[in-house]
Amino acid sequence: MGEKRIRVGVVGASGYGGMDLIRLLSLHPHVELTYVAGNHEESADIPEVYPFLPAAAGLRLEKYDPERCRERCEMVFVALPSGASGAVAAELWRAGLRVVDLSGDLRLPPDVYERWYQKPAADPGAIEAAVYGLTEWARAELRDARLVANPGCYPTGALLALLPAVRAGLAKRGHPVVIDAKSGVSGAGRHAAVDRLYGELQENFYPYKVGRHQHVPEIAGQLDVPAEGGLLFTAQLLPAVRGIYSTCYVWLRDGVSEADVRGVYAEAYADEPFIALAPPGRVPELKHVRGSNRCHIGLFVDQAAGVLQVFSVIDNLVKGAAGQAVQNFNVMYGFGETEGLTVQPLYP
Amino acid sequence: MGEKRIRVGVVGASGYGGMDLIRLLSLHPHVELTYVAGNHEESADIPEVYPFLPAAAGLRLEKYDPERCRERCEMVFVALPSGASGAVAAELWRAGLRVVDLSGDLRLPPDVYERWYQKPAADPGAIEAAVYGLTEWARAELRDARLVANPGCYPTGALLALLPAVRAGLAKRGHPVVIDAKSGVSGAGRHAAVDRLYGELQENFYPYKVGRHQHVPEIAGQLDVPAEGGLLFTAQLLPAVRGIYSTCYVWLRDGVSEADVRGVYAEAYADEPFIALAPPGRVPELKHVRGSNRCHIGLFVDQAAGVLQVFSVIDNLVKGAAGQAVQNFNVMYGFGETEGLTVQPLYP
Amino acid sequence: MGEKRIRVGVVGASGYGGMDLIRLLSLHPHVELTYVAGNHEESADIPEVYPFLPAAAGLRLEKYDPERCRERCEMVFVALPSGASGAVAAELWRAGLRVVDLSGDLRLPPDVYERWYQKPAADPGAIEAAVYGLTEWARAELRDARLVANPGCYPTGALLALLPAVRAGLAKRGHPVVIDAKSGVSGAGRHAAVDRLYGELQENFYPYKVGRHQHVPEIAGQLDVPAEGGLLFTAQLLPAVRGIYSTCYVWLRDGVSEADVRGVYAEAYADEPFIALAPPGRVPELKHVRGSNRCHIGLFVDQAAGVLQVFSVIDNLVKGAAGQAVQNFNVMYGFGETEGLTVQPLYP
Amino acid sequence: MGEKRIRVGVVGASGYGGMDLIRLLSLHPHVELTYVAGNHEESADIPEVYPFLPAAAGLRLEKYDPERCRERCEMVFVALPSGASGAVAAELWRAGLRVVDLSGDLRLPPDVYERWYQKPAADPGAIEAAVYGLTEWARAELRDARLVANPGCYPTGALLALLPAVRAGLAKRGHPVVIDAKSGVSGAGRHAAVDRLYGELQENFYPYKVGRHQHVPEIAGQLDVPAEGGLLFTAQLLPAVRGIYSTCYVWLRDGVSEADVRGVYAEAYADEPFIALAPPGRVPELKHVRGSNRCHIGLFVDQAAGVLQVFSVIDNLVKGAAGQAVQNFNVMYGFGETEGLTVQPLYP
Repeated sequence: MGEKRIRVGVVGASGYGGMDLIRLLSLHPHVELTYVAGNHEESADIPEVYPFLPAAAGLRLEKYDPERCRERCEMVFVALPSGASGAVAAELWRAGLRVVDLSGDLRLPPDVYERWYQKPAADPGAIEAAVYGLTEWARAELRDARLVANPGCYPTGALLALLPAVRAGLAKRGHPVVIDAKSGVSGAGRHAAVDRLYGELQENFYPYKVGRHQHVPEIAGQLDVPAEGGLLFTAQLLPAVRGIYSTCYVWLRDGVSEADVRGVYAEAYADEPFIALAPPGRVPELKHVRGSNRCHIGLFVDQAAGVLQVFSVIDNLVKGAAGQAVQNFNVMYGFGETEGLTVQPLYP
Repeated sequence: MGEKRIRVGVVGASGYGGMDLIRLLSLHPHVELTYVAGNHEESADIPEVYPFLPAAAGLRLEKYDPERCRERCEMVFVALPSGASGAVAAELWRAGLRVVDLSGDLRLPPDVYERWYQKPAADPGAIEAAVYGLTEWARAELRDARLVANPGCYPTGALLALLPAVRAGLAKRGHPVVIDAKSGVSGAGRHAAVDRLYGELQENFYPYKVGRHQHVPEIAGQLDVPAEGGLLFTAQLLPAVRGIYSTCYVWLRDGVSEADVRGVYAEAYADEPFIALAPPGRVPELKHVRGSNRCHIGLFVDQAAGVLQVFSVIDNLVKGAAGQAVQNFNVMYGFGETEGLTVQPLYP
Repeated sequence: MGEKRIRVGVVGASGYGGMDLIRLLSLHPHVELTYVAGNHEESADIPEVYPFLPAAAGLRLEKYDPERCRERCEMVFVALPSGASGAVAAELWRAGLRVVDLSGDLRLPPDVYERWYQKPAADPGAIEAAVYGLTEWARAELRDARLVANPGCYPTGALLALLPAVRAGLAKRGHPVVIDAKSGVSGAGRHAAVDRLYGELQENFYPYKVGRHQHVPEIAGQLDVPAEGGLLFTAQLLPAVRGIYSTCYVWLRDGVSEADVRGVYAEAYADEPFIALAPPGRVPELKHVRGSNRCHIGLFVDQAAGVLQVFSVIDNLVKGAAGQAVQNFNVMYGFGETEGLTVQPLYP
Repeated sequence: MGEKRIRVGVVGASGYGGMDLIRLLSLHPHVELTYVAGNHEESADIPEVYPFLPAAAGLRLEKYDPERCRERCEMVFVALPSGASGAVAAELWRAGLRVVDLSGDLRLPPDVYERWYQKPAADPGAIEAAVYGLTEWARAELRDARLVANPGCYPTGALLALLPAVRAGLAKRGHPVVIDAKSGVSGAGRHAAVDRLYGELQENFYPYKVGRHQHVPEIAGQLDVPAEGGLLFTAQLLPAVRGIYSTCYVWLRDGVSEADVRGVYAEAYADEPFIALAPPGRVPELKHVRGSNRCHIGLFVDQAAGVLQVFSVIDNLVKGAAGQAVQNFNVMYGFGETEGLTVQPLYP
């Protein structure tokens, strides 16, 4: 029947985000995966290097070569570490390809980036051009986007939890939101480090980068509050591999009831294929979305304190990275938004 | 193009095997899931009870009612506990439906069953009629089968590892094979028990049912050796949820070389879509197949001892239960064997 | 030099708290463990039932018999489930023994108890007489106490984190404190339940009893704020066995600096053998205290938001239960406070 | 009463073995810990670097300086990586100190070492002089030993399981023993490596160094069988931090009964403070010994196959390393063998 297939490349396939891109893209009905680059010594068949990616049989993992990438692809996902990713994405974009960049390099204005990342910012023109791809809140811009800055994992979990309340004006202005977030350790990437060893993290839990996490300005920008003083964001490491649990506390304007809150969220997410609201009194669980592109949200109002608690859960590597990137790709090319993303959560 | 869809039911959806059947069947292109029974108080939408099964939206979880099951289905998967499952499967089969039973009830001759399970055997006619569904070794019988006894999880891992060597006559006759098997705890099912609590199993490991595990006669029967003295099988609990690692030791006939062994396995599994042999010197890893229907196998020969070590790995709930059941369904109905089973392993 | 030994009993040895009491007491230099009651069929040598308690060899696990308990002991730890524990503790106390009760039954005024526990309150005279045993803040009353209500695990972690700031008047009056707490699953006890199975909790995380956790009024009472509106407490389950991580957010009075905060905490805990303050910029880790009676605390001030973040970590079964109970025993009898509690954390 | 205290040093305190030495020695009644060397940038108070070692307050972690070590200590534990440890141990021993070396460098004849470790052997005179310190089987030589080669973790678990049967002549001569061993990942040490990350090992399991593990000749030597052909040893990684589970299969001489076997083991370990035999029909569990110096052993005889299964469990960092080293120290100095080793297992 003639399915249209886009020639797609992945640059940065040796990290967890890149691996999950291959997992999803190798079964996508509208994708022909034509180029995969990662830091492997020599070109090798992917399932030989990564036996957990059997559907990529026949595909080779190569060293990144911009020319070869441009020749083989019309669209590219770039999933390199921050500091390297933005430059590669910008270069491919300027060469005429459509690009989704999964790093933090194109998400912030250059000056803000440099203050929080402590690195030189990427190509300002690319930063300017990039669409911030929180899919559910950015479809209009995504349709024609040629360069997309895929949101960070923490911002995705926090913003899907908070935007309905904030954009509808339910939150008390001027009072900082509290986002107490917990992430599986895959968010820290796949490079050798003593503090990421199994022996160190099993049965452990702790916050990191308190008061200086680079996702603070990204979240603040989308919520339209100052990065300093506008929110309290705590990133914490769970003894788990996948998933982000965001426990958010929002001070409500006087007179806002639980029914008001539920109405706003129900409307905001009425037709979303990947978002589910838990029934009253129930909470989302981290493992309910594992491996999938879903986001589950729970709502509780403490009337005496005048505070809304929002609980949200995503898989940091899927909805928080590779899955949302594919969802953005679907919007960019006019495919059905769930194409290539029907994989169900893995439970138990 | 008109995809043919079979009206399929699942009986026993409240256990882990049944849940994984729904995960797979709800996306199978040739399945219309028309009936799902589990022990839930009242009929309820599946994603409300199991939020990790969003693709089953619109399907209801009901109490088992044989009549309703027969009306709505032409084919049924039965995944009830041993002792209950065989009777239900036999009843549906006698009523004319095609049935795959995932329990141990139809896998052994009645007398052997009663000795090892310490329970009354099921309908002897059904036991007699049931095809033992280790797919890769039973395709011919499966094609016309109306009743299939889906293999146990441990037997699947052990037999896929051992059958090539044994059937090709590489093993020394009369010397017991050693199968040192390790299973994730989902194999023990989803019922409340103190010794299955998180606090008891995390950081723990131990064997159980030493010398009396009910899978011994099932493996022995397929290997054509006596259940007593013909093999040493040790079932052990891993602090993990999914997966079975089988470490097998096979005494070789004199003069059998590693090259002989590799040749036999390469031929046996040459065209198998779900089986991969690790390159020389490499071992399969448990997590490389998690969530998928795959089996990875590694081979080592200790020349000085004259012993072949075979390492095999499967996901106990997929290739060891629900996935193999779907694979058998595909063979029974002449569908492509990977239909509904393309889900990739979840790594990390 | 003649070590004085107290004849001590443990009632409720089949739960995790009771087991940890035996672990600690069986090596305590001033304890003669003379009576151990738990729900085991028949009297049995403890290491036979619990092979992980070898130091209890020679001690028998018996069914609880009040008379035998009174005969053999001068002091008893009662660690039964809430609803049962308080009555046993009260009875032994009225019979003249000194008692530490580890349940929630004696910690709250009867009316508050009944509202939050949804159970009839215990003997009001015993509740009235019981000293709330948060050791570091209750030594004076503990010395002559004959009945001690050992604090809950969550309250211990939260109160050790918050009391210095609150009692020193650093917190803004009227603004609710946020306590986002995460607990290992041993806190849920050792009884069979599907939602405590390994398969359900591994790689999982979620809150429970949102807005209605029974520890809310206990914490509120000690902080001297209303249980409703005075604090936001979220109890959440970690995929770990031991430990509670409390992430607390305290709105500061205007003009309070980080130096003020550090000064107050340094003074409050200057001579505490079990409490350590992390150096500026460092956070406590859950695993740093595992198995020990210690509490580690980290302090961060967000000047722009005017908020103090306090991170505290304890082992819920030790400082949050059995260890603090032994510490209270030491104070009650005038022993050195670290006697029997020198066990170091188990890391990794 | 004047307790004798030995001035003791630890060289190699930055690894897991060295950390556990400090955990144990800092509370040992006959030890004055006077010197601790590890690879930390500058001298630092130990609990500041390792907050989980509070009892080491006041002790500094220094760069290794042989002269300072000799000045401050009469006895030293050396726990450096293989290849480095033996030389330091030999040097200190030649300088007149008593030394326990925890590495593999002094356990094997130089030629055997070089073949299996692929490294140059250490000082042959030191290797010659070193007593192999499997405490329960070496007390006579340990009493006057000035240099002890502490056994490897796998050999400790396997030999405690096998020596009674082998030395009593119950095993069939010439038939290789099978040792299917599973280890927690702390055995791989505390250095950065991608394949030791939490994300890689959680929910994973696999063998490594099949047929070429350096512990093979160590075990073979003690069992008095050839390293090649005399045994089949498989080292496998568990998704757990601490512990080694050894599942051993021993072909019995004709006519040996289960009663014979139990009699031999009961006699061999009758008075051992750290070894416990499980009652008939029961198996040891990994977590039953965690954190302690204990070894639990279970025995099963498969009469039809003529095979004895021995299950043994130890904590690899304690009985398999630091604990056994302290036990050897106690024997060397004539202290009670359980001094400093009374710490109970941590369960759950």
